Amino acid sequence: MAVEKYDVVIVGAGPVGLCFASCLARWGYKIKHIDNRAEPTPTGRADGIQPRSLELLRNMGLKRQIMAHEPAKVYEVAFWDPAAKGIVQTGTWASCPKFIDARYPFTTLLHQGLIERIFIDDIEKSGTKLQRSWTIAGFNNDGKDPVYPVEVNLAHVNGEQTETVRAKYLFSGEGARSFVREKLGVNMIYKNPVAHVWGVMDGVVRTNFPDIKMKCTIHSDAGSIMVIPRENNMVRLYIQVASSTDKDWDPRKTKTAEEVQKLAQAIMKPYTITWDRVEWYSVYPIGQGIAERYTLDERVFMGGDVCHTHSPKAGQGMNTAFLDAVNLAWKIHHVESGFANRSLLSTYESERKLIAETLLDFDARYAKLFSTRLPSAGEVAGAHGEAASDNEFIKTFKASCEFTSGFGVAYNPNQINWGPEHPAQHPLILAQGKGTTQRTGYILTNATVTRVVDANVVHLEQEVPLNGSYRIYVFGGALAKTTAAIKDLATNLSAPTSFFTAFQHEDIKTVDRYHERHNPHSNLYTFNIIINAPRSKIHIDEQLPEMFARYADHVYADDVWDQRVPNAKASGHAKMGLSEEAGGVVVVRPDGYVGVVVGLEEGSGTADALNQYFSVATGKKLGGERATL
Amino acid sequence: MAVEKYDVVIVGAGPVGLCFASCLARWGYKIKHIDNRAEPTPTGRADGIQPRSLELLRNMGLKRQIMAHEPAKVYEVAFWDPAAKGIVQTGTWASCPKFIDARYPFTTLLHQGLIERIFIDDIEKSGTKLQRSWTIAGFNNDGKDPVYPVEVNLAHVNGEQTETVRAKYLFSGEGARSFVREKLGVNMIYKNPVAHVWGVMDGVVRTNFPDIKMKCTIHSDAGSIMVIPRENNMVRLYIQVASSTDKDWDPRKTKTAEEVQKLAQAIMKPYTITWDRVEWYSVYPIGQGIAERYTLDERVFMGGDVCHTHSPKAGQGMNTAFLDAVNLAWKIHHVESGFANRSLLSTYESERKLIAETLLDFDARYAKLFSTRLPSAGEVAGAHGEAASDNEFIKTFKASCEFTSGFGVAYNPNQINWGPEHPAQHPLILAQGKGTTQRTGYILTNATVTRVVDANVVHLEQEVPLNGSYRIYVFGGALAKTTAAIKDLATNLSAPTSFFTAFQHEDIKTVDRYHERHNPHSNLYTFNIIINAPRSKIHIDEQLPEMFARYADHVYADDVWDQRVPNAKASGHAKMGLSEEAGGVVVVRPDGYVGVVVGLEEGSGTADALNQYFSVATGKKLGGERATL
Repeated sequence: MAVEKYDVVIVGAGPVGLCFASCLARWGYKIKHIDNRAEPTPTGRADGIQPRSLELLRNMGLKRQIMAHEPAKVYEVAFWDPAAKGIVQTGTWASCPKFIDARYPFTTLLHQGLIERIFIDDIEKSGTKLQRSWTIAGFNNDGKDPVYPVEVNLAHVNGEQTETVRAKYLFSGEGARSFVREKLGVNMIYKNPVAHVWGVMDGVVRTNFPDIKMKCTIHSDAGSIMVIPRENNMVRLYIQVASSTDKDWDPRKTKTAEEVQKLAQAIMKPYTITWDRVEWYSVYPIGQGIAERYTLDERVFMGGDVCHTHSPKAGQGMNTAFLDAVNLAWKIHHVESGFANRSLLSTYESERKLIAETLLDFDARYAKLFSTRLPSAGEVAGAHGEAASDNEFIKTFKASCEFTSGFGVAYNPNQINWGPEHPAQHPLILAQGKGTTQRTGYILTNATVTRVVDANVVHLEQEVPLNGSYRIYVFGGALAKTTAAIKDLATNLSAPTSFFTAFQHEDIKTVDRYHERHNPHSNLYTFNIIINAPRSKIHIDEQLPEMFARYADHVYADDVWDQRVPNAKASGHAKMGLSEEAGGVVVVRPDGYVGVVVGLEEGSGTADALNQYFSVATGKKLGGERATL
Repeated sequence: MAVEKYDVVIVGAGPVGLCFASCLARWGYKIKHIDNRAEPTPTGRADGIQPRSLELLRNMGLKRQIMAHEPAKVYEVAFWDPAAKGIVQTGTWASCPKFIDARYPFTTLLHQGLIERIFIDDIEKSGTKLQRSWTIAGFNNDGKDPVYPVEVNLAHVNGEQTETVRAKYLFSGEGARSFVREKLGVNMIYKNPVAHVWGVMDGVVRTNFPDIKMKCTIHSDAGSIMVIPRENNMVRLYIQVASSTDKDWDPRKTKTAEEVQKLAQAIMKPYTITWDRVEWYSVYPIGQGIAERYTLDERVFMGGDVCHTHSPKAGQGMNTAFLDAVNLAWKIHHVESGFANRSLLSTYESERKLIAETLLDFDARYAKLFSTRLPSAGEVAGAHGEAASDNEFIKTFKASCEFTSGFGVAYNPNQINWGPEHPAQHPLILAQGKGTTQRTGYILTNATVTRVVDANVVHLEQEVPLNGSYRIYVFGGALAKTTAAIKDLATNLSAPTSFFTAFQHEDIKTVDRYHERHNPHSNLYTFNIIINAPRSKIHIDEQLPEMFARYADHVYADDVWDQRVPNAKASGHAKMGLSEEAGGVVVVRPDGYVGVVVGLEEGSGTADALNQYFSVATGKKLGGERATL
């Protein structure tokens, strides 16, 4: 019997494995997805979706399903500290303050099992069925089949059935205890083997504590608690049972549910709290650890908790897992589609390991921030305004908010994130602060615009779904000034050696793509054209070259007022820091991070600069300029 | 065998029957719901959800399910008219202009069958199962059972099975051909027995017509079309096949799909259009008719198309049906709950028949508006600004937009809509323009506020779900000024003769309602308290009387800036036209329409005024003041 072949074998159906499968399944890959559990997470575990992650889930078409469960939303964090008669509130912070321009400035709290089910439904829509109660028994990148180099041995947990398959890639999303990581011999580097022991309790309570529906950190002489509201009128309490900073530190220390409830009652005095129902209670030790490598051969990859573990306090675990998954998925997709050389795969570890390291550093700083000095109301208020003097505390606070919200995630310059060392050094390329506000390696700033064809007011950054394509935003400025530049861009992009032409669908002349909105020419890119004019003054077929008119569903009027740039005529242009008259081109990676920003000028320069960038990003020789690099 | 007894028997599972069932099922009524069709509407039919209806659906918890189908959204209407070489665009209008303060300023287009399924799922969640392929064979309000006075005979469409049940109420949502209406002998009053013959075609097209994703009215020398975008890349064309104003008017005139397509191609020149797929095509004559009565005995009721038929052009049919249903549902609920005398039921016909009459008048005016003079771009632009000189055309335009969006629906003064003739004439009652912007019988103006307990930024008008209760909004102004007035209000409401006390749960002392957020005291009302202060300065337990503190989930900080009242400190107060310092009380009916507005003052006046209003609304003797009326 022939061995079944798959594009990808995925082990584990927690957040990282599911998000990874969801991406690849929608892009048409053949997937074998196993999980050793018989059903999704029944209770407890991770539950915090950060603002940036919610934007990602919306881009995947999954936000509505999340919200259908009526999750709790955390807009503010309250601090409670010891006082003469028990605890008092000493301040509140916005969990995603206004200086972060987030569409959804709150953390969404929902039971992990419900989130898993949403992904499972989505994956099934793409024709992939999760195979439960199976586990990985072995794997070997033996290269016996050059296209499917990895052999994977699978076994049912009943110990009776086994199956051997071959795959292009193997991905481990097994969680902190990983067979794959162990077999690869990849070490976890621990700051502390076990840094904290936490008790976690989900339940329905009765209390006169006024902030029970807020996220709170409570410090009292009796101990510390973190309060996190949940869906279905529940509340989660994190109680630190032991910490490596304790004098009598014992990583095996534990407490019963009743002991933890009594402790909570003591900590929360003068307020009272009792439990109607406890849904979940667990005590678990948590080490701050990070895997030395995320892959050894760029065929067997790992992500999520396999690669990094840390305290749950900042609610980052699931969010980091999502971003690991999307980061790797589109890169594999581009390699397998012929859109990039295999060297692109090396950026998975370099980009994501840096984030995990930042997370662990942050985790330590975050703990310290909570346990030492507390903010005064004046400082917190000041942090919202422009004129705030940035003292050490406020700096840490701002950096923390950006990081925990997901908007501080930043990738260093590399082949896909332009920077001063990038081989593409065309003079039209714009750096942050020099012609644009956009920072490469950061998420694109949001903008609200009017779609021309149907007058719908839309969120520009969400207009291209997670289709695996680069999103190329041509901010067209004022047409009176830019008509020639836009025409020149189209003309030069249509040259045979440009990325536009080089990566076109092979069957572009034979297949009817009339109804294709996002990828009429190529799966490598989707163009968006944003014009500084009222919608009624934009006539796509008359004013735009045919190449761009073909993206009629992605032509927008930059005519919506924005409170953040109240004096701008074209607020989208203004928020990108581009000239409202002259425009510019912003290239955004398939996962939403800015790759490069290029000026829009008459002549071939704009196309040349884009070709230079894509030459490096894809590793293919493109454009007339390429020879001179 | 005992005859099965139901609170309500509902005949017909179109929009009106389903919406009616959804309301009553969620409030716990026992329902027999039949439909003579074997399955929901498969294709075609009504599909336009107006802005106000979408707010209602959100209030019912159904908007998210609607949006999950990715419906088309119509923000603008484009007008195309004859020119030298075919048609040209002569102007566009916002379909719900800014002067209407709508949360969702667009029409939502979705196939009726999908909307029906959303209601069916909702009804099943409340434990009611729609019984398909059954029809009504007879009914008789024979009063043989005083509690269940109506006998209803049902029959399977196969002609073999029959069933007889008894009910408190019978509701017909059968559509234009109604057994119930015929048996009652209620006449339809027709302006024209058949006014128009329409061809309607849903399908997927290829065209270079630039506004194919907009709502358009196209007039050319070859004829007229209305274009309406749909979900799933479809477009609906309405083609007028015949009109009673034609010289050769023939209500039996018809056209084939091919004839209509050729006609459309001729009308749309110089643009081209072809069909990839036609999902639905139908030609049907439409009469402008209205039923003389909606009920004869206030036991057997009718609603929706049973009572009013008109052209589909303005997209009002389904919306009017929803509002019929909700209007009747809460009134039956209040009568059956002992919250109102049976006389409340008479307001169903008086309120809803007026709307149907307005709709028919509007339908005629709307047709005329389209077929006569067309707006200049300047006039349309002017209609957005404050300074627009209101010429006849703009007045009609504004009135039309208000009506078609659903926000112009206004009920006349009666026992539940306060007015100058209302028996409650306490001096603290505020009329529109005299201390408030709110108009009784109109929908409450929206406001964005911050919920105090969890710092969530919320839409105030949506905070009370469709729970069948009056929504009492206590705008508390600045507490420094109003603390005594709020305390006095609580004290006076707690008097035994007040509506607050008189309608309390009978089991209030024995049943634990700790987790009840909306109706801790009574199903008659839900209180909301809105305070002019930043959220962090509001301490519910310390600052509010226990009565209002019990509604902790409904206490709000009026601290969110609003572009419509940019200089207001408390924008919610300002939008209601209430003093930002002194506040006021707005009583809103369970269906969202303003009942009465009362000033907030120290002493017993505010409570007295509310008691007077509720005395009349419920028909019960309430409050010390009642004797003097």
